[in-house]
Amino acid sequence: MPALANQRTAYLNGEYLAESQVLLPFRDRGFLYGDAVFDTTRTFGHRIFRLQAHVDRLYRSLRYLRIDPGLAPEQMVAVTEEVLERNRHLLDSEGDYWVSQRVSRGVASVDGEEPPRAGATVLVECTPLPLRERAALYRDGIRVIVPAQRRTPAEALSPRAKTSNYPNMIVADQEVSAIDPGAWAVLLDMQGHLAEGRGSNLFLVSAGELLTPKALNVLPGISRQTVLELAAELGIPCREADLDLYDAYAADEAFLTSTSLCLCPVRSINGMQVGGEEVFGPVTRRLIEAYRVLVGCDFVEQYRRHSR
Amino acid sequence: MPALANQRTAYLNGEYLAESQVLLPFRDRGFLYGDAVFDTTRTFGHRIFRLQAHVDRLYRSLRYLRIDPGLAPEQMVAVTEEVLERNRHLLDSEGDYWVSQRVSRGVASVDGEEPPRAGATVLVECTPLPLRERAALYRDGIRVIVPAQRRTPAEALSPRAKTSNYPNMIVADQEVSAIDPGAWAVLLDMQGHLAEGRGSNLFLVSAGELLTPKALNVLPGISRQTVLELAAELGIPCREADLDLYDAYAADEAFLTSTSLCLCPVRSINGMQVGGEEVFGPVTRRLIEAYRVLVGCDFVEQYRRHSR
Amino acid sequence: MPALANQRTAYLNGEYLAESQVLLPFRDRGFLYGDAVFDTTRTFGHRIFRLQAHVDRLYRSLRYLRIDPGLAPEQMVAVTEEVLERNRHLLDSEGDYWVSQRVSRGVASVDGEEPPRAGATVLVECTPLPLRERAALYRDGIRVIVPAQRRTPAEALSPRAKTSNYPNMIVADQEVSAIDPGAWAVLLDMQGHLAEGRGSNLFLVSAGELLTPKALNVLPGISRQTVLELAAELGIPCREADLDLYDAYAADEAFLTSTSLCLCPVRSINGMQVGGEEVFGPVTRRLIEAYRVLVGCDFVEQYRRHSR
Amino acid sequence: MPALANQRTAYLNGEYLAESQVLLPFRDRGFLYGDAVFDTTRTFGHRIFRLQAHVDRLYRSLRYLRIDPGLAPEQMVAVTEEVLERNRHLLDSEGDYWVSQRVSRGVASVDGEEPPRAGATVLVECTPLPLRERAALYRDGIRVIVPAQRRTPAEALSPRAKTSNYPNMIVADQEVSAIDPGAWAVLLDMQGHLAEGRGSNLFLVSAGELLTPKALNVLPGISRQTVLELAAELGIPCREADLDLYDAYAADEAFLTSTSLCLCPVRSINGMQVGGEEVFGPVTRRLIEAYRVLVGCDFVEQYRRHSR
Amino acid sequence: MPALANQRTAYLNGEYLAESQVLLPFRDRGFLYGDAVFDTTRTFGHRIFRLQAHVDRLYRSLRYLRIDPGLAPEQMVAVTEEVLERNRHLLDSEGDYWVSQRVSRGVASVDGEEPPRAGATVLVECTPLPLRERAALYRDGIRVIVPAQRRTPAEALSPRAKTSNYPNMIVADQEVSAIDPGAWAVLLDMQGHLAEGRGSNLFLVSAGELLTPKALNVLPGISRQTVLELAAELGIPCREADLDLYDAYAADEAFLTSTSLCLCPVRSINGMQVGGEEVFGPVTRRLIEAYRVLVGCDFVEQYRRHSR
Amino acid sequence: MPALANQRTAYLNGEYLAESQVLLPFRDRGFLYGDAVFDTTRTFGHRIFRLQAHVDRLYRSLRYLRIDPGLAPEQMVAVTEEVLERNRHLLDSEGDYWVSQRVSRGVASVDGEEPPRAGATVLVECTPLPLRERAALYRDGIRVIVPAQRRTPAEALSPRAKTSNYPNMIVADQEVSAIDPGAWAVLLDMQGHLAEGRGSNLFLVSAGELLTPKALNVLPGISRQTVLELAAELGIPCREADLDLYDAYAADEAFLTSTSLCLCPVRSINGMQVGGEEVFGPVTRRLIEAYRVLVGCDFVEQYRRHSR
Repeated sequence: MPALANQRTAYLNGEYLAESQVLLPFRDRGFLYGDAVFDTTRTFGHRIFRLQAHVDRLYRSLRYLRIDPGLAPEQMVAVTEEVLERNRHLLDSEGDYWVSQRVSRGVASVDGEEPPRAGATVLVECTPLPLRERAALYRDGIRVIVPAQRRTPAEALSPRAKTSNYPNMIVADQEVSAIDPGAWAVLLDMQGHLAEGRGSNLFLVSAGELLTPKALNVLPGISRQTVLELAAELGIPCREADLDLYDAYAADEAFLTSTSLCLCPVRSINGMQVGGEEVFGPVTRRLIEAYRVLVGCDFVEQYRRHSR
Repeated sequence: MPALANQRTAYLNGEYLAESQVLLPFRDRGFLYGDAVFDTTRTFGHRIFRLQAHVDRLYRSLRYLRIDPGLAPEQMVAVTEEVLERNRHLLDSEGDYWVSQRVSRGVASVDGEEPPRAGATVLVECTPLPLRERAALYRDGIRVIVPAQRRTPAEALSPRAKTSNYPNMIVADQEVSAIDPGAWAVLLDMQGHLAEGRGSNLFLVSAGELLTPKALNVLPGISRQTVLELAAELGIPCREADLDLYDAYAADEAFLTSTSLCLCPVRSINGMQVGGEEVFGPVTRRLIEAYRVLVGCDFVEQYRRHSR
Repeated sequence: MPALANQRTAYLNGEYLAESQVLLPFRDRGFLYGDAVFDTTRTFGHRIFRLQAHVDRLYRSLRYLRIDPGLAPEQMVAVTEEVLERNRHLLDSEGDYWVSQRVSRGVASVDGEEPPRAGATVLVECTPLPLRERAALYRDGIRVIVPAQRRTPAEALSPRAKTSNYPNMIVADQEVSAIDPGAWAVLLDMQGHLAEGRGSNLFLVSAGELLTPKALNVLPGISRQTVLELAAELGIPCREADLDLYDAYAADEAFLTSTSLCLCPVRSINGMQVGGEEVFGPVTRRLIEAYRVLVGCDFVEQYRRHSR
Repeated sequence: MPALANQRTAYLNGEYLAESQVLLPFRDRGFLYGDAVFDTTRTFGHRIFRLQAHVDRLYRSLRYLRIDPGLAPEQMVAVTEEVLERNRHLLDSEGDYWVSQRVSRGVASVDGEEPPRAGATVLVECTPLPLRERAALYRDGIRVIVPAQRRTPAEALSPRAKTSNYPNMIVADQEVSAIDPGAWAVLLDMQGHLAEGRGSNLFLVSAGELLTPKALNVLPGISRQTVLELAAELGIPCREADLDLYDAYAADEAFLTSTSLCLCPVRSINGMQVGGEEVFGPVTRRLIEAYRVLVGCDFVEQYRRHSR
Repeated sequence: MPALANQRTAYLNGEYLAESQVLLPFRDRGFLYGDAVFDTTRTFGHRIFRLQAHVDRLYRSLRYLRIDPGLAPEQMVAVTEEVLERNRHLLDSEGDYWVSQRVSRGVASVDGEEPPRAGATVLVECTPLPLRERAALYRDGIRVIVPAQRRTPAEALSPRAKTSNYPNMIVADQEVSAIDPGAWAVLLDMQGHLAEGRGSNLFLVSAGELLTPKALNVLPGISRQTVLELAAELGIPCREADLDLYDAYAADEAFLTSTSLCLCPVRSINGMQVGGEEVFGPVTRRLIEAYRVLVGCDFVEQYRRHSR
Repeated sequence: MPALANQRTAYLNGEYLAESQVLLPFRDRGFLYGDAVFDTTRTFGHRIFRLQAHVDRLYRSLRYLRIDPGLAPEQMVAVTEEVLERNRHLLDSEGDYWVSQRVSRGVASVDGEEPPRAGATVLVECTPLPLRERAALYRDGIRVIVPAQRRTPAEALSPRAKTSNYPNMIVADQEVSAIDPGAWAVLLDMQGHLAEGRGSNLFLVSAGELLTPKALNVLPGISRQTVLELAAELGIPCREADLDLYDAYAADEAFLTSTSLCLCPVRSINGMQVGGEEVFGPVTRRLIEAYRVLVGCDFVEQYRRHSR
């Protein structure tokens, strides 16, 4: 299995290369300054889910940072499909990929020197999903801790642009891990409303209603959108709202969504158990069932099978 | 001159390599997430200025992000000196370097694969100062624009840690450049107080007193500290304060400090001229004079000589 | 044409006077303190548009400042119509008026002196629209800049009361004009949400949906209301929302509304072009068309005809 | 006495006119938009106090609003002295004047018409002090109420510029007067710190120390500055600080300062009596004594003599 | 009548006791720290209104403070009914009760001593309604004053949990009573939006629409909920919204709701009269009528009959 | 030892009673609403430390809540001394007391009933210090966690008044205990600055300087004041400052102060170890030494002797 790494192929600035050859000059502005954006989709049964929605979001992020990728959206879609195509044979029947587009503003120039390759750095690559690492979450649920660190406000940098600006989230995760290894951070925004975790959105179920933070101060995930659509189809009342810790403590169920998680139950918030004996509450179960029908993949089983 | 690039040597994870060989795997967390810190000093007459203070700040940044560089501070100092040593002969008598330490949390692991090289990525490199690009600033002064975008608050990520979290500053710079190419952004903090520019600190002179934003919400630069010390020696009254646009508009003189700029006059703020006919006001002039004596280098002349 | 000025008639405290005779004692509290409110409507084809809605808003502003105008709303309507009546003959077929009611708290008294005329100062006057000045906007679109200055919050003074408290807006406009003469300021509110310009409301079109800032922290214009109604009639989805710079940068179209502008396209926001090649986007065009049918006046052509 | 009014002379745009002739066209931007600044000094024994400091502040206000008065500061001083000169004979030995400079941006132009007189409107005038109206305050002290309305924040419009933007203060005063006629409003700033009243600064005495709000979010009055200087001379410990209602309720003494009040004791804050039986506390008394020596006028007696 | 007090029975920790015997050790954490929650319903015609809704809210408050009452909700309901049962005979036909559950975390332990009774302190008691005290409000309406003191934000302690944390409200009430005895305080939240009074919710009627503050930062009362439901049934348009002082001043009608008040008209806000001559506006009247039908009790008459 | 409890005597409303007889009617407003204030001193070697300072603070808290205790400060001092006197013989040579004054607004009245005892409830009592419970802290240091819950802002209720408003602190403590039993909460204020723990103040040592949060938004403890005085005497540079998590993470030493703790080292903040191997850093040690000389009691040893 370790041998897989050097068989994968990635796209870099027009070329398809073995991953071991995908190396970046240290003056790439993505490395120097986090001056880059990205987006990540996943495959279900080796097929990419909602690629167009992810690419559209990537281009809004690019526009926000005023980076010109030098590629039209439809080319980005094609390159992404091609990267999957070239790596699909490396997946066993149980596995799936994250497939990511990463675009930095390119290489910084040095005063008085020949300018570097002009234009953005465009990278498209795939990574096996962390199925082993997360298998236990689908049995025990996620322990969520809300750290003191707040989510970067849109006045400084919009959370709706998926930039490489992760130190805010990383400091929060470090804070939480140091107190309870294995717990996940969900941050409040500057107004004290529940916002989001690193790459994940929060949902609460309260008195039969599904609640999730408003999209203004969080990255509105494609999986979040999928859950909202499924809830509508299932007739589950659903609302984007300003939520705070009172809502979290009063909730009957809670779960996180993300591209890779799809939908995974939360077991406790700041040490207070959510719901009763069952890790998977009734609304969570209905949504998971509908989700797995939609994507044609029993992702809960897929994770659990990789349990160590 | 363009030929210089491939002659420089940098330090990467224990080795001294030609710059062209300093390449990073794309899974380096510095590139993926901006999960890295750095610090930058400069040389005057080919000698590094206040290296210890810069390395101390670097280690506080590392501690804030909970990254272990795997090197003691004194080793970091030694490596930095060695990098300069190996590149000093490439400088002509007019030139000088930025010398930077950059430390990321290392390479991300892939589920089910052999783990990558463990530990942080440590890079030390030098870059010729942008003398040509900025020469005009020392003749005309800097046009400062205060954008609508605010500086990331410490509640989200402390500006006192010098992380690779630059998208906040970059969006502000893009906003300003699109309106007035060549102008520099100085951001307000979330309370509406003047904070800092990208890598630069602001000073105002008002009724004979030197004023600069408090260090809580800005990166307190080493050059800023140097100016505060010089002012004390020269008997110029000096105060860290909450400052706002009223102060900016009422100021008699203004200047920016940074490692590379040292101290460069501001000509206008939001289109309002600062001071009278002279670009260099009297207090600015005294401080520049004292600064150049301290560093043993006429940096104003050095910049101007590179005027295109 | 310059001769027109001294032919217009205005209403002041019960009398209809030639404009040249409408003079105010300097102790009028409107002049001393901006202690006054006003409202402005315009004519289309020499007829006033939605006068009742403007007068209702004027009386809410009066109530907020606790000024008693000494005139019932229906009297204010009648006076306004009479002022137009007396000045209509001065308009050529191409022209139109702003017609404004202005009410200050009256003349300040001086300690120990006979009190001045008691009660409010009531002025109703008409002014030719700035058709020449703005003609180019209907060809090129408006360049919007979002300044650092924020809109006065309701906690200090509600933006929903149309007081003479314009220094906030004026400082913002000065800031913007000094950087880019001809650009218009649109301010953020204290929370960093897009608020309003001086006398104008902002609309964005995003993914086919029409968006405009909520009415809590802006003066909800009559033209804004008109656009909301037209959008409903045309079946264009429409929503009042908390919007920020991310929304502005991601928008497909944008326009400003005001009594005099009606609806004028925005060409760029902070130097970032809105939309594609066409200045007038498709949704903007549909709304303009519906607006001109409603008011019975092709205001776009009216402005363009005055192009210099 | 009522006859005095029409004997005073004021300066308007280069001319010295009888007050009854000082009339402003209604299109003056001071009247239309509060687009004006002013400053006010008073006389003691018919001589102006600290005129230079007032004129300096006026010019900072002008600069903030980017209004060019067309007069150099020394001319403004001369005009002010001349206005006093021409009106001094109207004062009896007991009386004194407010002397004010008022500068608006001038008259608004009308599209397509001959431009109005170019440049700012400059008015300098004097007004008898409200000695009768306020006489009781120097016997009973001032009842202060802190309204819900907050002081306009500097992010919107700096309170340090003395603009005609008084509706914020006026709404607060209206709120307070409607609840308790005769009470004075002192507003909190947006952070909940004690700020200022309309034209007045607040001082507290607590455990022998003199405290006053920091100058960032208030107009730092000349009288406030005078009290700070006198306290230093008298050896009374004195500090500018962030103060809140707890400080107000815990204070042993409190007083307001303003150009006309000089220094007047506060009797209660939100209905809670300040200090003991004596309206004038010991520190207040020492400062009043020093103040009256400095200005050569027993202003407390002057007010009391006008008691009705 | 005074003799009634010692005839009432209350429930304390499993026992039904005469009120005079319901005594608490001073180390009860409810007394030491306000570490307790409570909820209060009232009877109409000697029957409890919406007990289940009150008990559900009580248990959400308990969960928020992580207090285990040691009783299931249905037991709490039964105990409450039993307390009423045992005290019903003391009511005359005109009277009604407040019936309250009060739960503290129990008695604090002392280091080195035998622990006190384990578990929470549970008290259920009834109190005659303050019909005499409030009778005049149903004739004259309530004078509301908005104090400077703000409502505790949810970031510190959620107003949605009904804890014994009343000092915030009490300081506000003290502030208001000292200025105008008999007036009621309605506080703003930290954002300057109208929030709530002590135990009461505010409603405004504006242009025929019923408005009430959003439930995020206030305790959403059961009576508030009842009014929202009645409005829906009556076809009165109704909306939860961010409201501020502008809305209050512009309102045509206003009223407060609470368990004991049900619905009582507001006569003035900060001294500005709400509505016209009639204390009870038309929408208020319709809602009162519907409310009294629902509860089977003419509460307005009940209060008025107790007028002194 | 358990037998001690029923031997202690307390003061209640004028009487000295056995603790078992100190019982409060449940309608005491301290129990109903937390409408009470308190203050707590401790004994060293059976003598009370700085009683006057504590009583002065108590009376400022009373004034803030507008409660009249019916006792002059010197009577409160005398009663406190008497309570100690009557209980001193129960202490063994190793032990010491907390001695507390608790004052509530008294018993709530019931409509139509004979009023209860008029005036405040005044209780003075002593409690053995929690020496056993905390002994380990003086060996291992305190693990501090900064919760998401924020300290109540002064705009809502001043933290400088020591009211029974503890639910804010209690929710924070519950949050922290549920994640890490035994850890102590230190809260941020609403601006994100380090504020205080429940009854404790935080100090940091950074680059040889002693730092503690400003007194505006925290209860400025008497022990905090004592440490500030000792630092001055020892020549340790010391500053009240706005501090945030960056300061906490960058600190070389940290400790908490409180009446009972005196001064106890912090071992970690959010799981990040403070300082090196030694739990007691050098500055902490010097201050402890000076503190124990001042109070004449080796409190560290006193705690450690009670280790279980």
